[in-house]
Amino acid sequence: MAKVGIVMGSISDLSVVTPAVDILKEFGVEVEVRVMSAHRTPNEAHDFAQNAIANGMEVLISAAGKAAHLGGVLASFTTLPVIGLPIKSSTMDGLDSLLSTVQMPAGVPVATVAINGGQNAGLLAIQILAIKYPELAAKLATYKLDMAKKVNEADKKLQEELNK
Amino acid sequence: MAKVGIVMGSISDLSVVTPAVDILKEFGVEVEVRVMSAHRTPNEAHDFAQNAIANGMEVLISAAGKAAHLGGVLASFTTLPVIGLPIKSSTMDGLDSLLSTVQMPAGVPVATVAINGGQNAGLLAIQILAIKYPELAAKLATYKLDMAKKVNEADKKLQEELNK
Amino acid sequence: MAKVGIVMGSISDLSVVTPAVDILKEFGVEVEVRVMSAHRTPNEAHDFAQNAIANGMEVLISAAGKAAHLGGVLASFTTLPVIGLPIKSSTMDGLDSLLSTVQMPAGVPVATVAINGGQNAGLLAIQILAIKYPELAAKLATYKLDMAKKVNEADKKLQEELNK
Amino acid sequence: MAKVGIVMGSISDLSVVTPAVDILKEFGVEVEVRVMSAHRTPNEAHDFAQNAIANGMEVLISAAGKAAHLGGVLASFTTLPVIGLPIKSSTMDGLDSLLSTVQMPAGVPVATVAINGGQNAGLLAIQILAIKYPELAAKLATYKLDMAKKVNEADKKLQEELNK
Amino acid sequence: MAKVGIVMGSISDLSVVTPAVDILKEFGVEVEVRVMSAHRTPNEAHDFAQNAIANGMEVLISAAGKAAHLGGVLASFTTLPVIGLPIKSSTMDGLDSLLSTVQMPAGVPVATVAINGGQNAGLLAIQILAIKYPELAAKLATYKLDMAKKVNEADKKLQEELNK
Amino acid sequence: MAKVGIVMGSISDLSVVTPAVDILKEFGVEVEVRVMSAHRTPNEAHDFAQNAIANGMEVLISAAGKAAHLGGVLASFTTLPVIGLPIKSSTMDGLDSLLSTVQMPAGVPVATVAINGGQNAGLLAIQILAIKYPELAAKLATYKLDMAKKVNEADKKLQEELNK
Amino acid sequence: MAKVGIVMGSISDLSVVTPAVDILKEFGVEVEVRVMSAHRTPNEAHDFAQNAIANGMEVLISAAGKAAHLGGVLASFTTLPVIGLPIKSSTMDGLDSLLSTVQMPAGVPVATVAINGGQNAGLLAIQILAIKYPELAAKLATYKLDMAKKVNEADKKLQEELNK
Amino acid sequence: MAKVGIVMGSISDLSVVTPAVDILKEFGVEVEVRVMSAHRTPNEAHDFAQNAIANGMEVLISAAGKAAHLGGVLASFTTLPVIGLPIKSSTMDGLDSLLSTVQMPAGVPVATVAINGGQNAGLLAIQILAIKYPELAAKLATYKLDMAKKVNEADKKLQEELNK
Repeated sequence: MAKVGIVMGSISDLSVVTPAVDILKEFGVEVEVRVMSAHRTPNEAHDFAQNAIANGMEVLISAAGKAAHLGGVLASFTTLPVIGLPIKSSTMDGLDSLLSTVQMPAGVPVATVAINGGQNAGLLAIQILAIKYPELAAKLATYKLDMAKKVNEADKKLQEELNK
Repeated sequence: MAKVGIVMGSISDLSVVTPAVDILKEFGVEVEVRVMSAHRTPNEAHDFAQNAIANGMEVLISAAGKAAHLGGVLASFTTLPVIGLPIKSSTMDGLDSLLSTVQMPAGVPVATVAINGGQNAGLLAIQILAIKYPELAAKLATYKLDMAKKVNEADKKLQEELNK
Repeated sequence: MAKVGIVMGSISDLSVVTPAVDILKEFGVEVEVRVMSAHRTPNEAHDFAQNAIANGMEVLISAAGKAAHLGGVLASFTTLPVIGLPIKSSTMDGLDSLLSTVQMPAGVPVATVAINGGQNAGLLAIQILAIKYPELAAKLATYKLDMAKKVNEADKKLQEELNK
Repeated sequence: MAKVGIVMGSISDLSVVTPAVDILKEFGVEVEVRVMSAHRTPNEAHDFAQNAIANGMEVLISAAGKAAHLGGVLASFTTLPVIGLPIKSSTMDGLDSLLSTVQMPAGVPVATVAINGGQNAGLLAIQILAIKYPELAAKLATYKLDMAKKVNEADKKLQEELNK
Repeated sequence: MAKVGIVMGSISDLSVVTPAVDILKEFGVEVEVRVMSAHRTPNEAHDFAQNAIANGMEVLISAAGKAAHLGGVLASFTTLPVIGLPIKSSTMDGLDSLLSTVQMPAGVPVATVAINGGQNAGLLAIQILAIKYPELAAKLATYKLDMAKKVNEADKKLQEELNK
Repeated sequence: MAKVGIVMGSISDLSVVTPAVDILKEFGVEVEVRVMSAHRTPNEAHDFAQNAIANGMEVLISAAGKAAHLGGVLASFTTLPVIGLPIKSSTMDGLDSLLSTVQMPAGVPVATVAINGGQNAGLLAIQILAIKYPELAAKLATYKLDMAKKVNEADKKLQEELNK
Repeated sequence: MAKVGIVMGSISDLSVVTPAVDILKEFGVEVEVRVMSAHRTPNEAHDFAQNAIANGMEVLISAAGKAAHLGGVLASFTTLPVIGLPIKSSTMDGLDSLLSTVQMPAGVPVATVAINGGQNAGLLAIQILAIKYPELAAKLATYKLDMAKKVNEADKKLQEELNK
Repeated sequence: MAKVGIVMGSISDLSVVTPAVDILKEFGVEVEVRVMSAHRTPNEAHDFAQNAIANGMEVLISAAGKAAHLGGVLASFTTLPVIGLPIKSSTMDGLDSLLSTVQMPAGVPVATVAINGGQNAGLLAIQILAIKYPELAAKLATYKLDMAKKVNEADKKLQEELNK
């Protein structure tokens, strides 16, 4: 079964990470969720990234705020695709996290999603896995239809309210 | 063979896209490079994205500047992973391209790399493909070693110069 | 009668859109208010824009946040003037929405108003329609006088309070 | 015949304004191009805006940089739609001009286009006029097709070069 | 007696303006406080600025938010020094107000103070008046000493608390 | 005669300061131009500010870039009005200089003009002096008329060129 | 015993400074905490910095917001390392404080830590002192291990919760 | 003798690093200059940091651009003070480098200097070493006097030129 490793820099990031975990589980992807800090437990982060392939992971997600180095640290120790999820903290409105995550130098990309975009981090992982696992591709197609249906229903409901 | 579709919003973006094309070819990945505009040829862009899977593509790369919608447009018409490459234009230092590409709403992620980060867009596509194509994973491991070797050589050369 | 189409990317944008609806109705302009997403229901958005003229609309307003592509998507499928209303979401203080809306490439303008400027989006639509519908021009002139009167009254009231 | 008034804050803005003038003339719209400063010749700017309707104008375009107040000044003296064209000057990369133009208070909108987006300022004026002048609507439809054709040709040419 | 004219763009700005009024009154400077909008009551603003000298004013203070043009409008109609007080509104954290106020083109300066810096707007007016009115200069010197005393007392109090 | 003290943080700022010196001399104001650094020669800067009144100065202008503290340092040692001229250096496009100059805490204002706005720094000094020196007020009125005349002439010339 | 001087610009900054004081005391470093303003009590700040070495201090920490000059002022009067702690105030999200603190001109560095990063300001002071005081180096090594242990425990606890 | 380790992320950063090397040598501090990348040669960077104390270093300087993680990586593997030197690259005007360097999470500070502030990185290292090495403190005092002398000479020269 497809497996994704998710690392957050601090347990306080859990609420932003949860939508990623949820969507992955909803799609039947195995998830290993860890707390590791690029700066406080760098050895653990390195080991995790270096052994990710051996441990059956195929995509990594890193969630971190401020000078968010976690994605870069993981990416420097693995060839797996690393998804960076910048987290908004109490200053700079998330701009620091975004730039620290996305502006990676040539050779070591981090696939960055929107600030606090937990669900999209999960979905992107599924999209990546889906090129190998056809059942995920099928589920994604359904998911896309459902998403459209929800917008259409909101639209219909609004029409009804406005025309009352 | 693995295949990547690259779309740029304007032919003037070619120089930023070229490093992506080069690295993909270097890794033996087939590349289809297209010029399509989210705003000037939206139908072509939609058709391209909608038929991407049928046409054998497994990852898409979009390159665009300013209000860079191309990645979002492609992502709305396919379940393939879409890599967004924000291009710096003549005003706002690339911030507009970056935010327009990365700040996607829940449900439709675009995997964003650094502003003008053409090579990383290509490398990320390879990392994604590598979870399915083991030969790419092997080449990525070698690439990572070569990259390290080059930095080490620059370091050694600097030591020699400084100690002369 | 003059008719304006208003599209919001998500039903959660309704509170920002409402002042636009209100001012248009106050001026006797017909309004069609829809929920459509550039990324989740792109086909609906395209159809809406492509048929806008046939459906009697003369101006479109799009309201969206973050990587706000909705205005650009509508503008790529119609020659009607499209007014872009950037919505402030929970990160980046509206800068992402503003730049994604206003920084459109040559050939496909979006007439952008202030972040969360719902009332101005409606007023701009009325100003545009007024070049064709003289009764709207007359109402606008009155509206401008009323607006001035309110400021003058606030000024007078302040003088009285300060001189008590 | 449809007529647009274009005001630039300084003669040094002419190169950014010229694409607006050119596209308007290409569409057969009459253009009056003026140099007037919100701050150095405020009376002239007021008179121009106040008499714009009487002088046969139906849309105004204002082009200004830095603390770009010209659009707001015109809009405060007319009910015509005013298009704001922010000009990038030597500091702040155009952000000052953009924010000064677009962030208008409720009641007095300025329809803002991209920084240095001269051509789009002209096109937006044409789109606005086209709701009244059917021949302009027809020309816009052709223009949109031509624009798409150019992108398609660039795409075709690129394919040929890459497949040589 | 020295007299300062204070204009706010909207009555909602009163709380930011009040510290300016208070400090001016504390120094015995006469104050005329008005509500006038650069965009909604431009004629009133012009008349006010144009007659300011005749009405005995020697310094003007303008307080406005968003695309804050009020300072520039006043400055274009008088040769009196105009102090610009940028007000933070609900988006952009005051950056729009600041840039719209301070980035004035050559020939028409606006003396800008900090965002929401009402007290400093008043103090700057007093400093300006003090070059003509010696009694104000004397009061300013005392004010500076008092300010220092308060800081010193806070310092002393902190020492005592820490050493308890 | 009226006298203004101008201090620049580094001799490399001279080209931005020169327009301030020129306009002041043009108006017949005496100017003392100095090089003093808030950080490298703080004692000289303090002495200069502390003795400014005794040395016959009535307004100070400070020009500095990056973490531009010079205006604040002068203002902390004098009750004279201090005009801050933020200078754009090689990074951050002048935003650092602007914020360091304008965002002064309550009690110690610095009257800030546009980034690199040397001429306006000089003009603002003249406007301040003019409340005491009637001959400067008269010259300012003429200057304002001349400024308007130049814009009008540029406008007229443009009309002639366009109508050739 | 090692001794650090901490200066805050206003007593209202105390809550941000407290974590610096706490960590220093926890490491057994003597702390002198003062309230002094770069602009309101410049003489006190100068004297403090000038006498810091004589008073046994070896590192200084300055905490200030907005146009945060305090670090620069201290650094201009001492050769001791000065740590700058930018404080977020009510506008600009701390960007003004950060740039005013970090963008120091050549010759007078201020060692800047994160916005509101009180604990890190204290830790940096300890790291600096530790090159001279071996007992501090030993404590720092332990502190680093403890920090890692806490992250590891959070990780373990999360695993247990997720696997329940 | 005191010894500083300097690491740059890429040999292309050498020109920004050189002023740091020069000032350190000028003060008689031993310097080890290395090229190591946080992302391309993370193991080398870790080893370097982990062995820095054993290799006789007492301060580290890291120079890097874009998502500048190098300072954070070094700081996570040593208790020595780490000075971060953000380097301006081709996009974002250095803001990305600055925020990635300075916004470090609690527990792992990086002492950040100005963007491209090579000389200040060196000087800060000397200031830190000077608390242990009295001869450096003496040289710093002289350096400060020389710096002041140069500014005073520039001032004197300017007076002579202006009074010619």
